[in-house]
Amino acid sequence: MRYGHNPTIVGWQIDNELAEPSFDPEAHKAFHAWLQHKYGTIQNLNQKWWTSYWSQTYSDFGQIPVHDAEENPALLLNWKQFVTDTWVSYVRNQTTPIRQHALPSQFITTNTMGWFDGFDGYTLHQSLDLVGWDDYETDWTDNAARHDLARGYKNKNFWVTETDPGFVNWRPNNLAHDKGEVRALAWQAVGHGADAVEYWQWRAALNGQEQYHGVIAGADGNPAPIYAEIQTLGAEFEKAAPALQGTSPHAQVALLHDMPSRWAISFQKQVEDFNPVKALTAFYGPLRHQAGTVDVISPQQNLASYKLIVAPGLNVLPQDTAEHLLEWVRQGGHLLLGPRSGMKDAENALDPHLQPGPLAPFLGAHVSQFYGLVQPVPLSLAQTQGKGTLWAETLVPTDPTTQTEGFYGPSNGWLDGQPVAVSHQVGKGKITYLSTIPDAATLDAYIKKQVQDASTLSPLADLPADIEACLRTGTDHTVLVLINHARTPVTFTLPQAMAGTDLFDPRQAASGQITLPGYGVRVFTLPNPA
Amino acid sequence: MRYGHNPTIVGWQIDNELAEPSFDPEAHKAFHAWLQHKYGTIQNLNQKWWTSYWSQTYSDFGQIPVHDAEENPALLLNWKQFVTDTWVSYVRNQTTPIRQHALPSQFITTNTMGWFDGFDGYTLHQSLDLVGWDDYETDWTDNAARHDLARGYKNKNFWVTETDPGFVNWRPNNLAHDKGEVRALAWQAVGHGADAVEYWQWRAALNGQEQYHGVIAGADGNPAPIYAEIQTLGAEFEKAAPALQGTSPHAQVALLHDMPSRWAISFQKQVEDFNPVKALTAFYGPLRHQAGTVDVISPQQNLASYKLIVAPGLNVLPQDTAEHLLEWVRQGGHLLLGPRSGMKDAENALDPHLQPGPLAPFLGAHVSQFYGLVQPVPLSLAQTQGKGTLWAETLVPTDPTTQTEGFYGPSNGWLDGQPVAVSHQVGKGKITYLSTIPDAATLDAYIKKQVQDASTLSPLADLPADIEACLRTGTDHTVLVLINHARTPVTFTLPQAMAGTDLFDPRQAASGQITLPGYGVRVFTLPNPA
Amino acid sequence: MRYGHNPTIVGWQIDNELAEPSFDPEAHKAFHAWLQHKYGTIQNLNQKWWTSYWSQTYSDFGQIPVHDAEENPALLLNWKQFVTDTWVSYVRNQTTPIRQHALPSQFITTNTMGWFDGFDGYTLHQSLDLVGWDDYETDWTDNAARHDLARGYKNKNFWVTETDPGFVNWRPNNLAHDKGEVRALAWQAVGHGADAVEYWQWRAALNGQEQYHGVIAGADGNPAPIYAEIQTLGAEFEKAAPALQGTSPHAQVALLHDMPSRWAISFQKQVEDFNPVKALTAFYGPLRHQAGTVDVISPQQNLASYKLIVAPGLNVLPQDTAEHLLEWVRQGGHLLLGPRSGMKDAENALDPHLQPGPLAPFLGAHVSQFYGLVQPVPLSLAQTQGKGTLWAETLVPTDPTTQTEGFYGPSNGWLDGQPVAVSHQVGKGKITYLSTIPDAATLDAYIKKQVQDASTLSPLADLPADIEACLRTGTDHTVLVLINHARTPVTFTLPQAMAGTDLFDPRQAASGQITLPGYGVRVFTLPNPA
Repeated sequence: MRYGHNPTIVGWQIDNELAEPSFDPEAHKAFHAWLQHKYGTIQNLNQKWWTSYWSQTYSDFGQIPVHDAEENPALLLNWKQFVTDTWVSYVRNQTTPIRQHALPSQFITTNTMGWFDGFDGYTLHQSLDLVGWDDYETDWTDNAARHDLARGYKNKNFWVTETDPGFVNWRPNNLAHDKGEVRALAWQAVGHGADAVEYWQWRAALNGQEQYHGVIAGADGNPAPIYAEIQTLGAEFEKAAPALQGTSPHAQVALLHDMPSRWAISFQKQVEDFNPVKALTAFYGPLRHQAGTVDVISPQQNLASYKLIVAPGLNVLPQDTAEHLLEWVRQGGHLLLGPRSGMKDAENALDPHLQPGPLAPFLGAHVSQFYGLVQPVPLSLAQTQGKGTLWAETLVPTDPTTQTEGFYGPSNGWLDGQPVAVSHQVGKGKITYLSTIPDAATLDAYIKKQVQDASTLSPLADLPADIEACLRTGTDHTVLVLINHARTPVTFTLPQAMAGTDLFDPRQAASGQITLPGYGVRVFTLPNPA
Repeated sequence: MRYGHNPTIVGWQIDNELAEPSFDPEAHKAFHAWLQHKYGTIQNLNQKWWTSYWSQTYSDFGQIPVHDAEENPALLLNWKQFVTDTWVSYVRNQTTPIRQHALPSQFITTNTMGWFDGFDGYTLHQSLDLVGWDDYETDWTDNAARHDLARGYKNKNFWVTETDPGFVNWRPNNLAHDKGEVRALAWQAVGHGADAVEYWQWRAALNGQEQYHGVIAGADGNPAPIYAEIQTLGAEFEKAAPALQGTSPHAQVALLHDMPSRWAISFQKQVEDFNPVKALTAFYGPLRHQAGTVDVISPQQNLASYKLIVAPGLNVLPQDTAEHLLEWVRQGGHLLLGPRSGMKDAENALDPHLQPGPLAPFLGAHVSQFYGLVQPVPLSLAQTQGKGTLWAETLVPTDPTTQTEGFYGPSNGWLDGQPVAVSHQVGKGKITYLSTIPDAATLDAYIKKQVQDASTLSPLADLPADIEACLRTGTDHTVLVLINHARTPVTFTLPQAMAGTDLFDPRQAASGQITLPGYGVRVFTLPNPA
Repeated sequence: MRYGHNPTIVGWQIDNELAEPSFDPEAHKAFHAWLQHKYGTIQNLNQKWWTSYWSQTYSDFGQIPVHDAEENPALLLNWKQFVTDTWVSYVRNQTTPIRQHALPSQFITTNTMGWFDGFDGYTLHQSLDLVGWDDYETDWTDNAARHDLARGYKNKNFWVTETDPGFVNWRPNNLAHDKGEVRALAWQAVGHGADAVEYWQWRAALNGQEQYHGVIAGADGNPAPIYAEIQTLGAEFEKAAPALQGTSPHAQVALLHDMPSRWAISFQKQVEDFNPVKALTAFYGPLRHQAGTVDVISPQQNLASYKLIVAPGLNVLPQDTAEHLLEWVRQGGHLLLGPRSGMKDAENALDPHLQPGPLAPFLGAHVSQFYGLVQPVPLSLAQTQGKGTLWAETLVPTDPTTQTEGFYGPSNGWLDGQPVAVSHQVGKGKITYLSTIPDAATLDAYIKKQVQDASTLSPLADLPADIEACLRTGTDHTVLVLINHARTPVTFTLPQAMAGTDLFDPRQAASGQITLPGYGVRVFTLPNPA
């Protein structure tokens, strides 16, 4: 009521880093009510959860325990969905009164936390206007994926609501960013669609838990060494703002990030190093390297703009999601499924079609058996002799037109000589199933082939490993941000097709051979690609 | 009452994997009553437990706490014995009503868990007819020892009540058995005396905690890849059944497995890598390799049929057990004691005779000091320059006829030049005390010497490391099971003395040079050895 | 009352190893009362603790929680000080009645535990007459520092109230001392100022938790192997007693050990391997190697006798402590501050002077930013090319007469080319600030330079690494204890200036080339140095 009509207030951030759920008696009661609403009768729940196995049959919703690990997989998945719905209700308790008093121009956001898996961010962000996230990541490729994750929640630009001016204090080891790296990472955020980068914290509080957290102004109130770097950045942002206005990244390829699938795998990893986020980022890296901009989205989103979709671990694949994907494939889409895909239905129950569940008839093949791996197994794929890591599956073609790709070398006997991947035409598109996570070099080669097949190779493909190119496109021009994420200078060739004008120094060459110093950044404007 | 007189019911399995005890107030009360029954007065308990040390004196049984670690060693050992008695009472609560209604031909069993140390299996199995155990072991030598452990509880054939068709889901890393390995392990079970091998689980339940556990039939109800292997096995078992009927393994050597000793060492390990089961299996391997069939038994069992008994860590050695062993030694038995033997009495108190306690006067030597080791120490034993690992003791001969064997090289000064083992004639037999766990090569050489001295060398000694030979003997013939536990083929010579007939293909050679493919199994019948 | 006037009682040891505090409701109440007494009003506490940050403001002392980690740094430091005061009160509850009945000649002591940080030992020992400590340390250099710590509490000789005759039983791995090492360590204790060495335990109790602890007499009541070594030691002590009488170590250099600083760093380590005790001992080793006797004292103690004081991590540096140090510096003292010094005030709040806080104006420099390190960074210091480990800071000189020493090589950009240390004249003395913990070789070189600059180089500097020389000085003579802490013999030259007479065998050479056998000890008497 006090600030709602104040035009200098651009928006509202509610709460701080929604995180852990409660396990108290009230939460138990709410869970039971939520289950009763969902299943109607306890008999229905018993049937869906297969509680007759291990004598788990309930006669009353009130008997159902609350656990977040080592329980019936159906219970565990429902618990996560209940927690998500509870957070949504919590958010709406705050957004509803704000909207009654706020200007239509004022947005409502909160600050979420990257890959945090405590709730389904796709559901939660339906109740918010703007995605904000707290970026304390240290690896630049993973950071790229997290920015794309943030952008993907609502398929629009986002804010970095917090990031550190140098280092944090809450890790076991709190190492500083190199000189220049903070600026480079801020430009990376912008390149991926951030429209604001906010630093935590401005000046040290003299006491309290964050005395060792990075600051822009020291305990004496004077500029800390990083001040100058952030000052430069501010001036650059001011200069670049008109060019960035109205632009955002646009992708032809998408990576599917499905919370029920992540949860389901995390509940039952089978091999302890199988991390569903690492499985996603293993595919993200080569995909971005070859295809340029990548959207990280949920499988329920609109897929019309994509030519290639990669789903590294789509473990939970209900019928309706499968149909949504199939509709897109039939129109010409290329769908690449990774290992563990299509194993479970919406209740986290095994799909009797065998993997990839409802897509098995369309793939013309199914998985006959999975094998968790600690030692990698030899394989040959995409003209590369490599290794399959963490997981491997035997694929059984069920249609004469199913194509096989690559084969496993000798290991446990079961995999020896079996195909590594199979693919099958569906309408104008195709579905491919890859039964392992290949080592990095083999996966690079394989993803390059997929990207080429789907005609989504970027003109900026195959830049040196430490160079990142980000494109933001508007109605009449494109902004290209080039970043050297290494400590040392890197030289590379920018193709003529991407020739533009340097936004900060128009006299500098903006195509041909370019040298970026360590943590160097250049920003170009160029005509929109044809 | 419903199935008790049904002749198609062969027996009864009660409960599932008896495991952890309760620590609730009722358990406390029961423990106090059990102690009162055992000790009569609190003064008696105080004296036996030496509670005056550390001001632990109790004035009432109700004051005694319940802990399973870091407490008075007497309390800890009594707690384990109380838990055992409580499980016995629990089992009898089930067997008593079953026996009132069951046919005399119906056995009662339960499924125990290998080396699990929560109760004393020798005591528990007195209340059951048949030993059943759940075999989820992955190392074949340890698996061999566990089969012999199961057989030893009642000195008769047993059942494998559960084993996995490929892999399990409850380990941090759940790796699959190689193709052929499941069949090889089933034959190993039979070779060690199993009369049945049952698989968990037959077909995947679509939901519930074991979705990732190995199955014979998949979620679609059709055969999983392992089905064919188990089908072959079933056909082989059917064919072999008449030959196996009435046969079982018979041993001339025994390994003593004493639960009070295991518990006592586990309570007070002194060096963290000292694992009493690993100490047992360190001796089991070479013993089986040289002597063939090994019985794993408790020191209270009938010893008459053995020529050599090895007790690697007989830490708790009460007077009556010592006398039982001495009686057997005097008749010609060779007893080899390992380090930490004979340190404690039945109350887990130090024996003032010093190690090996009541046997010290008969050994003609005692241990003057023990040394826990992290770094192995050099030694010379059985013509081998090797190392002593984990534990070493200085032995002081007290009789001129005591023989010393080997000596320690230079290390901590205390051990330098001291004897590694001593032995002494007792009646027609002898007692030997070995004061360390030698490295594998030295232990092999030393055990071979012991086996030869006791005239128990097997005609199948010294087969290649991956080849296992199991003998089951009946009244009129012997069955020999030969197994290659390696992935790759192994060739070896089967001595003429073991020549027989191949049970599945009588045209194949059953002596002389034999090549077994990876995980290959051959089963022969032969005349009983003379 | 029974023993108070018994002249054969030399003193009283109260309690055993004061250790962990209570967190029960009574402790909460006592903490609240203690805070109220200290701060007067809750507003005052809120202001000092900066509770407005993170919405921690309290309206009542009763709301303040009790934690010993991950809380407001002011709360954490106050908790430790409250616990110290509570232990002091506990000790006085025992000393007051004893003193009412004891002879004036009877001392009161307790047995403390080396670096244990549960309370402030400098405060506690004000209520006791004699320092006693339980020495179960295994590294001889760390043991040396702990003896000096014990001596420093009251700046006088102390007792080793417990040490093991060979080994203990409460570590994960309980390894034995080598033959001869127990004697060598007892002489080390004496060399550092111990006037008694007491062994735990004499004879094994037959039951109870310490069955595996080292003993002098075994379970049979007869001498254990170590008995003879301790018997020899006893005879030596008897012979040496007259010479040792009235002597004690005297130091020209001191190492500051400040409990508030240790606590403050431990609460907020920033890099997990930063251990404030290891930071102290990193400096202790080269300091003792070059300067001989080192006092380990609190910064509040009398400093008049020192020429050089090293404060490796004086993190909490209130104004009054700074003035105490400055007064000594002005008289000619050399003060060497290590990294993390002078960051906090008495409330554990950041000092707005920036590091080293109240000393910054006198140093003519301050720290502009700290960097926690996992990877060491290159540096050049004291003519040595080395590495900075764990921590590095950028130093900004603020006075033209400030001298810089050494510089960092290229690493994170921020440190590149910055000075490693700065120093500044203050009155007749100087303050030096070293901004990292150099690797061992560089720190050796740097400390040697400091020791030389302060004219405190020992005539026994630079002895071989395993040889320790301890000096105890009395009014008319000095006792020199030479110890070889290695297993093997070491030969070295004892300078003529230290020539004396061998206390046990006066015919042996006591200067020039000396060979000590493994764990060898020699004790000389010599005239007091000029």
